[in-house]
Amino acid sequence: MDHNSEKISHILEALPYLIKYSGKTIVIKYGGAAMVQEELRGSFAEDIVLLKYLGINPVVVHGGGPEINQLIQSLNLNTQFIRGHRVTDEPTMEVVEMVLTGKVNKQIVSLIQEKGGRPVGLSGKDGGLAIAEKYLMEFEDDTGHKQTLDLGLVGQVTEVNPQILYTLQAEGFIPIISPVAASKDGKTLNINADTMAGAIASALKAEKLILLTDTPGILIKGQLATGLNKQIIDGYIKSGDISGGMIPKVECCLEALKGGVKRTHIIDGRVAHSVLIEVLTNQGIGSLIE
Amino acid sequence: MDHNSEKISHILEALPYLIKYSGKTIVIKYGGAAMVQEELRGSFAEDIVLLKYLGINPVVVHGGGPEINQLIQSLNLNTQFIRGHRVTDEPTMEVVEMVLTGKVNKQIVSLIQEKGGRPVGLSGKDGGLAIAEKYLMEFEDDTGHKQTLDLGLVGQVTEVNPQILYTLQAEGFIPIISPVAASKDGKTLNINADTMAGAIASALKAEKLILLTDTPGILIKGQLATGLNKQIIDGYIKSGDISGGMIPKVECCLEALKGGVKRTHIIDGRVAHSVLIEVLTNQGIGSLIE
Amino acid sequence: MDHNSEKISHILEALPYLIKYSGKTIVIKYGGAAMVQEELRGSFAEDIVLLKYLGINPVVVHGGGPEINQLIQSLNLNTQFIRGHRVTDEPTMEVVEMVLTGKVNKQIVSLIQEKGGRPVGLSGKDGGLAIAEKYLMEFEDDTGHKQTLDLGLVGQVTEVNPQILYTLQAEGFIPIISPVAASKDGKTLNINADTMAGAIASALKAEKLILLTDTPGILIKGQLATGLNKQIIDGYIKSGDISGGMIPKVECCLEALKGGVKRTHIIDGRVAHSVLIEVLTNQGIGSLIE
Amino acid sequence: MDHNSEKISHILEALPYLIKYSGKTIVIKYGGAAMVQEELRGSFAEDIVLLKYLGINPVVVHGGGPEINQLIQSLNLNTQFIRGHRVTDEPTMEVVEMVLTGKVNKQIVSLIQEKGGRPVGLSGKDGGLAIAEKYLMEFEDDTGHKQTLDLGLVGQVTEVNPQILYTLQAEGFIPIISPVAASKDGKTLNINADTMAGAIASALKAEKLILLTDTPGILIKGQLATGLNKQIIDGYIKSGDISGGMIPKVECCLEALKGGVKRTHIIDGRVAHSVLIEVLTNQGIGSLIE
Amino acid sequence: MDHNSEKISHILEALPYLIKYSGKTIVIKYGGAAMVQEELRGSFAEDIVLLKYLGINPVVVHGGGPEINQLIQSLNLNTQFIRGHRVTDEPTMEVVEMVLTGKVNKQIVSLIQEKGGRPVGLSGKDGGLAIAEKYLMEFEDDTGHKQTLDLGLVGQVTEVNPQILYTLQAEGFIPIISPVAASKDGKTLNINADTMAGAIASALKAEKLILLTDTPGILIKGQLATGLNKQIIDGYIKSGDISGGMIPKVECCLEALKGGVKRTHIIDGRVAHSVLIEVLTNQGIGSLIE
Amino acid sequence: MDHNSEKISHILEALPYLIKYSGKTIVIKYGGAAMVQEELRGSFAEDIVLLKYLGINPVVVHGGGPEINQLIQSLNLNTQFIRGHRVTDEPTMEVVEMVLTGKVNKQIVSLIQEKGGRPVGLSGKDGGLAIAEKYLMEFEDDTGHKQTLDLGLVGQVTEVNPQILYTLQAEGFIPIISPVAASKDGKTLNINADTMAGAIASALKAEKLILLTDTPGILIKGQLATGLNKQIIDGYIKSGDISGGMIPKVECCLEALKGGVKRTHIIDGRVAHSVLIEVLTNQGIGSLIE
Repeated sequence: MDHNSEKISHILEALPYLIKYSGKTIVIKYGGAAMVQEELRGSFAEDIVLLKYLGINPVVVHGGGPEINQLIQSLNLNTQFIRGHRVTDEPTMEVVEMVLTGKVNKQIVSLIQEKGGRPVGLSGKDGGLAIAEKYLMEFEDDTGHKQTLDLGLVGQVTEVNPQILYTLQAEGFIPIISPVAASKDGKTLNINADTMAGAIASALKAEKLILLTDTPGILIKGQLATGLNKQIIDGYIKSGDISGGMIPKVECCLEALKGGVKRTHIIDGRVAHSVLIEVLTNQGIGSLIE
Repeated sequence: MDHNSEKISHILEALPYLIKYSGKTIVIKYGGAAMVQEELRGSFAEDIVLLKYLGINPVVVHGGGPEINQLIQSLNLNTQFIRGHRVTDEPTMEVVEMVLTGKVNKQIVSLIQEKGGRPVGLSGKDGGLAIAEKYLMEFEDDTGHKQTLDLGLVGQVTEVNPQILYTLQAEGFIPIISPVAASKDGKTLNINADTMAGAIASALKAEKLILLTDTPGILIKGQLATGLNKQIIDGYIKSGDISGGMIPKVECCLEALKGGVKRTHIIDGRVAHSVLIEVLTNQGIGSLIE
Repeated sequence: MDHNSEKISHILEALPYLIKYSGKTIVIKYGGAAMVQEELRGSFAEDIVLLKYLGINPVVVHGGGPEINQLIQSLNLNTQFIRGHRVTDEPTMEVVEMVLTGKVNKQIVSLIQEKGGRPVGLSGKDGGLAIAEKYLMEFEDDTGHKQTLDLGLVGQVTEVNPQILYTLQAEGFIPIISPVAASKDGKTLNINADTMAGAIASALKAEKLILLTDTPGILIKGQLATGLNKQIIDGYIKSGDISGGMIPKVECCLEALKGGVKRTHIIDGRVAHSVLIEVLTNQGIGSLIE
Repeated sequence: MDHNSEKISHILEALPYLIKYSGKTIVIKYGGAAMVQEELRGSFAEDIVLLKYLGINPVVVHGGGPEINQLIQSLNLNTQFIRGHRVTDEPTMEVVEMVLTGKVNKQIVSLIQEKGGRPVGLSGKDGGLAIAEKYLMEFEDDTGHKQTLDLGLVGQVTEVNPQILYTLQAEGFIPIISPVAASKDGKTLNINADTMAGAIASALKAEKLILLTDTPGILIKGQLATGLNKQIIDGYIKSGDISGGMIPKVECCLEALKGGVKRTHIIDGRVAHSVLIEVLTNQGIGSLIE
Repeated sequence: MDHNSEKISHILEALPYLIKYSGKTIVIKYGGAAMVQEELRGSFAEDIVLLKYLGINPVVVHGGGPEINQLIQSLNLNTQFIRGHRVTDEPTMEVVEMVLTGKVNKQIVSLIQEKGGRPVGLSGKDGGLAIAEKYLMEFEDDTGHKQTLDLGLVGQVTEVNPQILYTLQAEGFIPIISPVAASKDGKTLNINADTMAGAIASALKAEKLILLTDTPGILIKGQLATGLNKQIIDGYIKSGDISGGMIPKVECCLEALKGGVKRTHIIDGRVAHSVLIEVLTNQGIGSLIE
Repeated sequence: MDHNSEKISHILEALPYLIKYSGKTIVIKYGGAAMVQEELRGSFAEDIVLLKYLGINPVVVHGGGPEINQLIQSLNLNTQFIRGHRVTDEPTMEVVEMVLTGKVNKQIVSLIQEKGGRPVGLSGKDGGLAIAEKYLMEFEDDTGHKQTLDLGLVGQVTEVNPQILYTLQAEGFIPIISPVAASKDGKTLNINADTMAGAIASALKAEKLILLTDTPGILIKGQLATGLNKQIIDGYIKSGDISGGMIPKVECCLEALKGGVKRTHIIDGRVAHSVLIEVLTNQGIGSLIE
């Protein structure tokens, strides 16, 4: 089989997925290595543009990356720490917003534009997309009593108004969203990008929520678990097989499923084109929770 | 590079073509080996379905194939020949129409439906798509005088009403057209499928007209000529490098270009997925006339 | 009253029916004498065109007529008979489809086009209009046990996808449907035209289903029964007053009523313009089942 | 031929006209006997409703009738006369408007509603439909000098804003228009109904303008002239064959033709259903000017 | 603060109301002094035009005013009185309709047009807007028995078909409605303008119904009552604090609230711009019943 | 006149401007004091929201303000100066973009959202809104020769793609644009906000371009010049009456007029609600160039 025929046969393998996802929405949390390494950034941007031309509607929610810390350091902001967690005070929040919305978001916009897409950058503030409230972390103190920790200007989304997304999608634009939102009393709050993506996926009743991570997916005793659901995950959390930073990610997925998303995926952002591999190939990639 | 990555990289090679042809119309004359061999039929149907899902609008005009002759023989129709050309009398025309519109067309419809598309079969009569008039073949007799030959119910398209095609395309259907049309006085006429495809491509100001043939393309002294235009072709016809059955094909292409079609192609229908190779790869296939 | 005034008064008699049926859909099973006799064919085509211009949406489902048998005979196909029923084998089915879809359908299309309408011919395969499954005839053998008879490629409609009909109607086209459909495993099946019309009328929640027959309607002891319903019909079947070939026709009507059709009619196709007489006059024609 | 068949054949005679006028606009000046005699009123209303259901868009402009004079007399208004012409002073204009817009218009609306149509009454004031200016009658005095005669609140249309008519037509309403309009400085003016109909027909580029009169049409030496044009009419006016009250009517028709109306008709409103006879029959009625 | 700044600050005070009422419908009963005094007429017309340009949809229902009686007197119509109530016989009804629909309605239309709006006058007959039936007044005779009083051609609305209103609103027209409607048997009936406005407000599920009166609102022991509801009103009627002509007005409001109107207002039409004061200012004006 | 009446009379003064500007687009360059002082920011936001609710489409292009310099200083960026002009190197451009797009833009978005509008922040990169190229400043050196000065990443708009603006406007969103754009080779460039506003106004064929400044307008010998045009301005520039920083502003206005903008204004942003005063009052404010 010559190169062209092979190429075409590869494209044709994707046909069942085109039929299945045509006109559907896929929300992708973009972050980690895929956002840092030059080559991965390019391949991610191509994935998003290709999805759009294949008739599938991608919505990207991005995280922050190392650039926030760099700017905080350059500015010598005094960061307060409580119980090991950094407190987001106003000067810090300003930096967070500027970097997320004014730098990272626009880099993604530029890259996708360059690859042939028509991206529009938004933060949660634009078009009233996301309303948030302050998030108070709950924890048990040494005596076993429940306490709450005020980490400053950190929020969780309480309301999503997706009309701006429908408006942009209908005209062929690709929304690129930075995880910042305002509270009802006008405070700017930093939102965890995974949960922002999950909230938006729920509001859109998305076909898929895909979280890009710097792991192959959910590893259970070192093996990639591919097909999971709430019951299995509850077991793994109880047994300690899922632990640490993976817990909020799987919870985010379960929450999105409850909110009406069809399928959720935790995949390896370090693999070039992992989004397309997930969406368009038989084998897929990473862990599926449904 | 593992299989998935390779596959995705192949799909991505197609991205520039998706960007270029998104929303455009491509008219394909389907016939010859591609319509006879089981495997080629399947791969052609996949090509059409994939194009549609890629946001490109294919319109298929098919020829007849050997089945017309089989039925004519089974029915022992007396076919008259004039100067080596078969005369299409009424009983013959009836057989031609039944086979083209009632058998071949429906086989293509079924195959494309099976592959996931939504085809609708039409003849030139449906929705008043094509109006034709009797075609009188001109030739020079032995004394060098121009004469015309009446080959019976053979026609050429004089008017295309593309509204039925726009209607079907707008709702996601794929038109599959058999080369039969009625004259204004109600006679059913057999139309050459290449010229039918050309006339429809012109009426639609199609992005491409692709003629599937049983040759690699236009061969000049045994070599495939890839990029041609009217001037070059006129030269080759004069020099005899283009001759015989290839002449009406290149004339059909030139006519379509004159009618507003952007590019025309004569490609090898014996190569699996030659339509996709032409549309989606850098190298392309066959001969381009523009 | 002079001719013009009389003419106008006749047109005005139709006004209440225009008001009643404006924008509604009427499905007509076309067959029998109305399809064979030259003059009746013309008058039927006029009826359909007029209905369309009156703002009523006709959908025509046609039967086969004598031409199928002629071609079968010309081809010397060996037809097998089981218990007096012809078995439709593959060569026969090919002939059936070619004649229905490639000849009869196009004749109707041409005629309606000529009268000023904009018909588009379809078979059940086009746009996935009708999906069918093999029909096994049930009967009781001599010992009173239920048996099933396999008559070959004969089917019954299990699913109607009316989008192609809505698409065509919305743009002013008149669908002309031949009673052939594919099964899910890709077999071409011959469908009884009455039940095809009934299934389509149900899917469209048609205002009327009209079956053209070669009788004045339902005759009970030699008298035309005009207003009937399920209860009355059940009685007549039990009493034997309705019998033979009329039974499947009334069952088709009852099935359509159950499927949401408002009124069904069995009328005399041998009377010129019987469709218009039914739709537009006070007196109507034939038997009404509602 | 029995009654039903005859009726249907009469309806079918109208088919070519339905095809020709489908979706087109016909402006009808309604007045004279057709507005006075009970039976003619009913038949006119039926004509209008039928046209609408046949897919043709009627627009009615009505005149005043004897009721204006009755009310003027009942109110003992002192009417001034100049050179035999009544001067429309303010109290008179008030009566004219009340009768035209508040009585005659609503009678027509009620009648058409009753026959099954959906009429909406308008005067030239509604939706800014017609803007008028005072009309000064020109005449030659005894010494042959041109003079102008001020007949008070009599106007001629200078501007038509047809949007309100398009709005109503698009939703299936039938506009019924009384010939009253305001001038730019807010004066209410009485407009000749023929010229009002002509101005509206021009603004709509109507297919037809039909003036209902109490004569069979244009009589030349006692004979009905059926097919006329500007040249012929100019001749007849010069020769005196067209004279008196017929002159402004033919001028109104010529003006409408100049304004883009396709055909104009002067027909006999005393004949029941003369509008339908004109529109739907081969023979037609009255005089055609085109 | 200079004039411009003050002006702008005043406009900005209205902003919360623009946000609240944008795209909503407000039905206004127009009558009394506001319709009689030159200056108030102008200010009312400005209010209506401004509302429309502010993106709010006003619908005006007007009453009759003194002009009806003037014309009745001028015509020396013999009016019959029963128990102190005038009986509306046919000649009287004719006058009522002519004045309401042919004079008062058109005066309002002209005024609003002049101020820059695009009004369209309607009566209940147009577009089948309102269907009414004869209203028989109930009363107790001296012996305490219920009796009904036939006051002639007086009606109450039984059905509202708001499509004509939606049609006009969607295209930027302002409906001006005279309180006349036809019964199903074709009788013209005089409708109380308050109840006509209430019925139309209910059919439109209007945001507000505003009744303009010649009082400051509902006066309870000489004090304006501003915020009321059914319970409070029932108490006041029982206690006699609400009595006489105010009773039908509050009943009209309560009926409208029951019909789905959000808020109803009885305000002082003698105050210039009272409609805008009600809609756009914090303080508002008159009595609110909700 | 009490407060309410006065308020309403002030609102009504705006009616002619509502009629004039309804549905039109007004582009406003926002900067200077109006963006710095708390109270002026609030009043500007109210102006924009009110305009939108009045049916006028505002588009805001904002400048940077002092916050860019603050961040540059905090980061100790070494800024190079050439001939007194700061050179925008890459680290500086990054700061400029972050502050403009990630901070200033979002502050404006938040404020307008809070006042009841539905703003969406964009930079020139979003939706490919603005394409720029490097701007080389021309100057004459000491010997009178033309030289160009490379000030780094400073650009001028060469192409505006307004589709994203139409998309947002059509759905009721208010575009807030930061003056940053990418060049075709992917460089981020800082654009002068006035010229960005002018380029966008031209692309939209805006009704007005309003430049907010920290002066009363164009002062000629200390007097505000209110009505100007190209000819007058050319004279004033020649005479030196217009000089310094006002020259690029008037050139920006003249360029916009050439580009199809109807009217341009240079107004005093230090006056609260100066935008509304300009748009809605007879007197207006500042200098008009048309």
